[in-house]
Amino acid sequence: MTHRIPLGWTMNGVACGIRGASGEPGRRDVAIWYSDRPAVAAGVFTQNLVFAAPVALCRERLPHGHNTNLRAVVACSGNANACTGDRGYADAVEMTHLVEKGLGLNTGSTLVASTGVIGRFLPMDQVRQGIGEACATLGHTPVSLDNASHAIMTTDTRPKVSSRTVSLSSGETVTLLGMAKGAAMISPDMATMLGFLFTDAPLDSTQAHQILLISSKRTFNCLSIDGHTSTNDTVLLLANGAARPNINLEGSELEDFAKAVHEVSAELAGMIASDAEGATKLVFVEVEGARTEADARKIAKAIADSPLVKTAIYGADPNWGRIVSAAGYAGVPFDASKLSLWMDGLPLYLEGAPAPFDATAMSAHMRHQKTLVFRLALAEGTHGCRLATCDLTPEYVRLNSDYTT
Amino acid sequence: MTHRIPLGWTMNGVACGIRGASGEPGRRDVAIWYSDRPAVAAGVFTQNLVFAAPVALCRERLPHGHNTNLRAVVACSGNANACTGDRGYADAVEMTHLVEKGLGLNTGSTLVASTGVIGRFLPMDQVRQGIGEACATLGHTPVSLDNASHAIMTTDTRPKVSSRTVSLSSGETVTLLGMAKGAAMISPDMATMLGFLFTDAPLDSTQAHQILLISSKRTFNCLSIDGHTSTNDTVLLLANGAARPNINLEGSELEDFAKAVHEVSAELAGMIASDAEGATKLVFVEVEGARTEADARKIAKAIADSPLVKTAIYGADPNWGRIVSAAGYAGVPFDASKLSLWMDGLPLYLEGAPAPFDATAMSAHMRHQKTLVFRLALAEGTHGCRLATCDLTPEYVRLNSDYTT
Repeated sequence: MTHRIPLGWTMNGVACGIRGASGEPGRRDVAIWYSDRPAVAAGVFTQNLVFAAPVALCRERLPHGHNTNLRAVVACSGNANACTGDRGYADAVEMTHLVEKGLGLNTGSTLVASTGVIGRFLPMDQVRQGIGEACATLGHTPVSLDNASHAIMTTDTRPKVSSRTVSLSSGETVTLLGMAKGAAMISPDMATMLGFLFTDAPLDSTQAHQILLISSKRTFNCLSIDGHTSTNDTVLLLANGAARPNINLEGSELEDFAKAVHEVSAELAGMIASDAEGATKLVFVEVEGARTEADARKIAKAIADSPLVKTAIYGADPNWGRIVSAAGYAGVPFDASKLSLWMDGLPLYLEGAPAPFDATAMSAHMRHQKTLVFRLALAEGTHGCRLATCDLTPEYVRLNSDYTT
Repeated sequence: MTHRIPLGWTMNGVACGIRGASGEPGRRDVAIWYSDRPAVAAGVFTQNLVFAAPVALCRERLPHGHNTNLRAVVACSGNANACTGDRGYADAVEMTHLVEKGLGLNTGSTLVASTGVIGRFLPMDQVRQGIGEACATLGHTPVSLDNASHAIMTTDTRPKVSSRTVSLSSGETVTLLGMAKGAAMISPDMATMLGFLFTDAPLDSTQAHQILLISSKRTFNCLSIDGHTSTNDTVLLLANGAARPNINLEGSELEDFAKAVHEVSAELAGMIASDAEGATKLVFVEVEGARTEADARKIAKAIADSPLVKTAIYGADPNWGRIVSAAGYAGVPFDASKLSLWMDGLPLYLEGAPAPFDATAMSAHMRHQKTLVFRLALAEGTHGCRLATCDLTPEYVRLNSDYTT
């Protein structure tokens, strides 16, 4: 699929050797995205109390979650630069300074993200060389979306890119380009993992922040691979207005653009769930009839994070009691005698009693589908939530039992 | 190991065919414990909103958690009798009536527990026959602790039994005998799994309840295999006073007895963690320096339930960043720059910065030890908690991906 690149944006990814330590010497591990003019930026970050140095630095550069006059984003993979104390923070600052120096930008105009192993210092000699090389290429090589989207991958098996073009009523078009990495250590209650959204739309930074908050809440934050909230989760939206300088989006134009942000975010979140470490199935947990959206989300997350639910799905086992019982310990009060559950529209449990079904046929259905939808209905209210998750497989265990050693 | 049987108690386990459906025709699946005189009883049960019929019935027979004049407990394995609606409740009542009829007891003097697959109706023809057979043997066969402790097993690989004898200052001795089953769908915030404690100590029912509440909180409730709170968790303590009729324990005698209950409960909880489905290692997560015990427990549980932490332990990978980051999303505020972590006394992370260590030696240590202790220190207060858990292995996934089908 070909993606349009928003006006004024360029990007590249290079291999500097961070991954060399993990036996992948030639793999790209540093990405830079650069705007030829100032952009507004907004960010949402992990809610983990133990957060990485790049997250700390981005928060400073986006007071209240947004700012103006940003010019670039730099990211590295293979090392999270988390739990690295003062030295890690200084390394994150240096990464941005290297970009600013290399591209002739003002100090403080670059954002930074990292992903990979926690608790190791960045190999700064390699990082310096990599950032230098990437900056040098940005001016005179074609935009390399492919290199940039590969350079942020860790155990992802494929890059994750999504884009939309929005036609404005004025006749102009604006372009939105998003990319993300996922794979594991992924759970909502935050702005999940690394996600980067770039656009040439004209926005003020408050608008950008609002749009990002709303879309992340129902996309990246409605996603759980393994219930483990990362130290590094970062989603950024940068808008440089190159498509229509000087006149910001408003009214229905702004709504259309917000819809595109939601769609791109949802698409990236779905790609992350279906490319989760070891996963064989993409699973949606829909909860309806809750008192609040937060209640629905708590229940959906208890179901999505239960290893018993996840392994049953892997085994194509219609063991619905695990789903119903996970709802019961989510910490949300409800009338258990009113609970009902469907899988792909087929009833499994109706108002507190088992619905008879053909277990063999149901298991065959589960085995053949790549995507399954479980819908749990409560009788408490009118709010709901749809959460993306995956199964738990021996391959997940294999990948994660041998990560740093 | 030989266990003393408390005076006045007898027990047996038989195979009635509940397990036949799961391809284990000869396996024992019904257990009965019987006191030759009235006993006081106390119980703690799952906090899951979706709770099984036997839990509902036990709660009725132990108003405020305890009661007098109980005579027997019946348990079956292979079927949880959970999510079975009114019919499941009637089946649980019938199980107790069958015991009361078979042993000539008053109606309402029997407690009941079940464990196994959720959402299936009990095969009552087999259950009737099994209870009949067990009742018939209780009068004239020797006590069979072995049969009873096997009959409550599901995926447990071995029975779990613990006992203590307490010498009273009066010169008499009282005996406490406990047994439990575990394996999976095990997480604290409740009275975990099935645990049965029988004694000939003279207690009033309020004392029995208090002792059980306190000991369960720090033993069965400080245990997590997979973070999934069951629908059927039940721990019962029954005391018939046969060792010294008429004079209840008090003062230091009561304290000594409470200590024995704690020790037996802790021993059974440890057995459950080390015999968890697929587990290769018993792991203790100790959290200290928390503001409250509840805070410490929340953090320990976030660590114990993280699949990333559990798989790293399985792989003997000293990937301590996963432990520290799990603490960060537990929902407990703390100063992350003051965090420290040790494994078996060896420092991994000290006051927010990595402690240098030899990863190869550390990994070799992890591979050789059957038990590992992770100690996380906060600087918020003086409270702590010690939680038992295990690793996450391909075998857990295999066992749980093919359970009902």
